Amino acid sequence: MLNFTHFFDKNNYDNKLAKPSKEALDNVFSLIKQEKTLNKTGYYSLVHDYKALEDSLSFLKKHKNFLETIKNIVIIGIGGSSLGIKAIDGMLKHLPRRKNIKLRFLEHTDPIEIQKTLNKIQLTQTLFIAISKSGTTIETSSLLKFVIHKYKLLTPHNKKHLIIITDQDSPLSLFAKEYHFDFFEIDQNIGGRFSVLSTIGILPLTLLGYDTKELLEGAKKFQDNFFERKEEHVLQKAIFLAKNKERYPINILFSYSSVFKNFNAWYVQLWGESLGKIDIYGKKVGLTPISLIGSIDQHSFLQLITQGVMDKTVTFISLDQANYTKPKIPKLSLKYLESTDFVNNTSFAKLLSTQQIATMQTIQNENIPTDHIEINELCERSVGTLIIYFELLTSAAGAILNINTYNQPGVEFGKILLKKMF
Amino acid sequence: MLNFTHFFDKNNYDNKLAKPSKEALDNVFSLIKQEKTLNKTGYYSLVHDYKALEDSLSFLKKHKNFLETIKNIVIIGIGGSSLGIKAIDGMLKHLPRRKNIKLRFLEHTDPIEIQKTLNKIQLTQTLFIAISKSGTTIETSSLLKFVIHKYKLLTPHNKKHLIIITDQDSPLSLFAKEYHFDFFEIDQNIGGRFSVLSTIGILPLTLLGYDTKELLEGAKKFQDNFFERKEEHVLQKAIFLAKNKERYPINILFSYSSVFKNFNAWYVQLWGESLGKIDIYGKKVGLTPISLIGSIDQHSFLQLITQGVMDKTVTFISLDQANYTKPKIPKLSLKYLESTDFVNNTSFAKLLSTQQIATMQTIQNENIPTDHIEINELCERSVGTLIIYFELLTSAAGAILNINTYNQPGVEFGKILLKKMF
Repeated sequence: MLNFTHFFDKNNYDNKLAKPSKEALDNVFSLIKQEKTLNKTGYYSLVHDYKALEDSLSFLKKHKNFLETIKNIVIIGIGGSSLGIKAIDGMLKHLPRRKNIKLRFLEHTDPIEIQKTLNKIQLTQTLFIAISKSGTTIETSSLLKFVIHKYKLLTPHNKKHLIIITDQDSPLSLFAKEYHFDFFEIDQNIGGRFSVLSTIGILPLTLLGYDTKELLEGAKKFQDNFFERKEEHVLQKAIFLAKNKERYPINILFSYSSVFKNFNAWYVQLWGESLGKIDIYGKKVGLTPISLIGSIDQHSFLQLITQGVMDKTVTFISLDQANYTKPKIPKLSLKYLESTDFVNNTSFAKLLSTQQIATMQTIQNENIPTDHIEINELCERSVGTLIIYFELLTSAAGAILNINTYNQPGVEFGKILLKKMF
Repeated sequence: MLNFTHFFDKNNYDNKLAKPSKEALDNVFSLIKQEKTLNKTGYYSLVHDYKALEDSLSFLKKHKNFLETIKNIVIIGIGGSSLGIKAIDGMLKHLPRRKNIKLRFLEHTDPIEIQKTLNKIQLTQTLFIAISKSGTTIETSSLLKFVIHKYKLLTPHNKKHLIIITDQDSPLSLFAKEYHFDFFEIDQNIGGRFSVLSTIGILPLTLLGYDTKELLEGAKKFQDNFFERKEEHVLQKAIFLAKNKERYPINILFSYSSVFKNFNAWYVQLWGESLGKIDIYGKKVGLTPISLIGSIDQHSFLQLITQGVMDKTVTFISLDQANYTKPKIPKLSLKYLESTDFVNNTSFAKLLSTQQIATMQTIQNENIPTDHIEINELCERSVGTLIIYFELLTSAAGAILNINTYNQPGVEFGKILLKKMF
């Protein structure tokens, strides 16, 4: 359902990295395999562990009547606690099984955003889900307090409107126990940006009506194949990008449809925060992600890609146009604008998909490395595959860079400083 | 009302570029002065030319009754024809004079977006404004045809629902004359991404209720000061960024409030498309813009800035917190989450503004060049200043890079290819 094509070697014939040797592939594979075996990160286990699904289905069953009255789900969480849910909902919203529930987020400390979000909801129709590994992220804890205070969520009658997802034995978990909120724990070893296939993502997505079993299946199938050495392109791409990091320090994800907007934001965090690190030798390394949406960003960023410094690689994502025959550009010729009649009577989807190909070829003509992910159809299964693909790619690139892919020590200093300033 | 502070030299004592010589400043200034004198681009004239304002006010007067019934303004335009309007409306929406009119955009060829936008409107309450320099941009012309067909806009009774803003004597202008639509022309010498202070931006913004005279005044005052050598920091920053392009090829705009989201997108086009060019010596040059919003992106991108490769500069934009005393974080201590009580009873705005300072200091501690734009209050005047500041900065950087800042030849090939593929 997903098709991966690399155009690295075509334009970079001088570059052995485009077609790495078996030895190189084996080496990177063994590093990832080792991460999995030694449980360096918990995310590899998620596709085989049905805890997230069981958590979600048992919660759904237990609160069936209450949940049927819900019109808003408000996620209180930031970064890895919100980006993944938003990404998947953005790509799957069109599915008929998606319930008529508004998904909203309290993530920002921006006063304008907070008021805008809360103006739209009534407590009786709302479920708040606070998501945080520790519960002490300043945005999340402040917004949680705000919501608890505003809606009197500590009173027994209102408690059902707040549930908690957090790390095992975290302060937030202890809080939930103390005040008798429904709560779910996840393995401490699963980093926020790799957590969307845990209860963090699966519970809200299940409540929204998605077939999250299929989502996990799509991820599982791809991950199993990867570990059976049937998806070697992941290793090839990781080697190309990581080993060319000086030549191409910037990686663009150019997704052709607005449904990928939030997915691209998820990718930016995954790639940027995982790979921007001090390596084991003490050197600052990293690859800079950029998110673009086609066709719209052809009119803002394409010029820089084609004629600016050649420091970028571009990954295209496109959807099969066959799924969208409407709307069409009418068969209408307007005087003086006849030069655009060549698209008359074609669907906008066909125009968009042709623009993607034309743009990709334009970039390839400048000898800029590109690759292309074609998605046949956006459904839970294909989205699960897409998620795990980028997670495995990130892990492989991190392993090659000799870094810890799964921590984020660089943001700690700011947190301490903030506390001092108050 | 705007305060500009550079932290280039503090952390870069080895770098003479942080404090350029008088000779260097004079040289760059003379290049810009020459652009203005030779009319290399028309945008320098906009703040002294009241055509945009007159166009807007006379249209408003002529169609007063009709315009009072309007609930939607739909801009049909892409890139420079939409980004500026969106940016300014995003920053000024809170003003009480902003009319209760929804501003929508048809810019994308994405079928999902088109249907979402048009589902929300009724013709009787809608004014479409088609904006394009030529009228032959494929997105704009296709969407224009779609709208004309769907709403029968060629019938005399419906014609008032579409107006046109385009280049003098362009195909779109000829079209408007032929079919008797209201239309406005702009100087061909004003590039799309520098056009927001022309009729392109001023007309829609006036219809939305903004005091566009103040917007132009804010820009005029700053531009006049610049040409009187009273805003030398613009030249200093342009020199620092352009001459350090190999060391710091990436420039981040980190704006602390979600109201800047669209402004950041406008900046990305302005900076990327203007500076990503083949220079007069045949070399590909450019600086890569990245848009971040605080505090939210601290949780996705900050790690990469602080511990990744030091190839970035960061410009912060912040708002004076004094204007937002609500909402506040309640004085509420939750058991096990007491470690976050240090922000209790402060406003979210104060938290956000303190986060901005803590993040800036964290980045400065890593010897990464930063600068800070503090905005006292978001109003037409300060926004006009902000717009012209970035335009002048871009012009100055382009002049130093020996490029044509105002064209975009790199996107032409894709357009030809697209036509061939149909």
